[in-house]
Amino acid sequence: MSVCAFCAIVAGDSGAAVVLETDLTIAFLDIRPLFAGHTLLVPRAHVETLPELAPDLIEPLFGDAQRLAEAMESALGAAGSFVAVNNRVSQSVPHLHVHVVPRNRKDGLKGFFWPRTNYDSAEHMEEVAATLRQALSA
Amino acid sequence: MSVCAFCAIVAGDSGAAVVLETDLTIAFLDIRPLFAGHTLLVPRAHVETLPELAPDLIEPLFGDAQRLAEAMESALGAAGSFVAVNNRVSQSVPHLHVHVVPRNRKDGLKGFFWPRTNYDSAEHMEEVAATLRQALSA
Repeated sequence: MSVCAFCAIVAGDSGAAVVLETDLTIAFLDIRPLFAGHTLLVPRAHVETLPELAPDLIEPLFGDAQRLAEAMESALGAAGSFVAVNNRVSQSVPHLHVHVVPRNRKDGLKGFFWPRTNYDSAEHMEEVAATLRQALSA
Repeated sequence: MSVCAFCAIVAGDSGAAVVLETDLTIAFLDIRPLFAGHTLLVPRAHVETLPELAPDLIEPLFGDAQRLAEAMESALGAAGSFVAVNNRVSQSVPHLHVHVVPRNRKDGLKGFFWPRTNYDSAEHMEEVAATLRQALSA
């Protein structure tokens, strides 16, 4: 038995409504969807968060996310899609998973991208940018 | 002048608080952040949505998303991060952009992943899965 719920699906120990399988990835329906068709795409290899994903798995995983996003429109007739990864916070299962969700106008899913805030000042914004730049150039 | 707001940043016609630049991508702070540090990562080449991103840009773009997600924790002290792409619906600028947002427990951003729904029946769920599988195997 796998301890990780998604490794159990990968191993075939748990059932799932699979929508896509490759040598490196598997995608299945979320059992508690935002909307019907809400898919979870995972690498077969267990990693917890996006930064830990091996470089050679980036293209396979997000290439499949592209195909799934396209299928939300072509197969389900959605107006668009939402593709998201929660790292640690709001991550219910600690096995990297990409949410691919069909979206439509006025579907009620305005929640996440609200409320926006403002930086206290231009200086504050520049300070935050500089902090990130420094970390990324290290 | 670029017509696209993000192409204008790429071209240097519009200012932005840039946090990361590569030959293929550029990342800058969202001026109306969910939280300070909320970054938008874009490919320099204009495409509107994720499915349209050229295969050879997937690894560069999401490799940079990895680095940014890591920096939300290492540089800003966040407990985690949120990495998301809106395709068409909720997409304010029609130039593909990856949101990379610092997250913390009880940060108030519970909105998006609620409310969840249920499939009417196991049959309904299987029907949706089959529709996606068929589109993806075509």
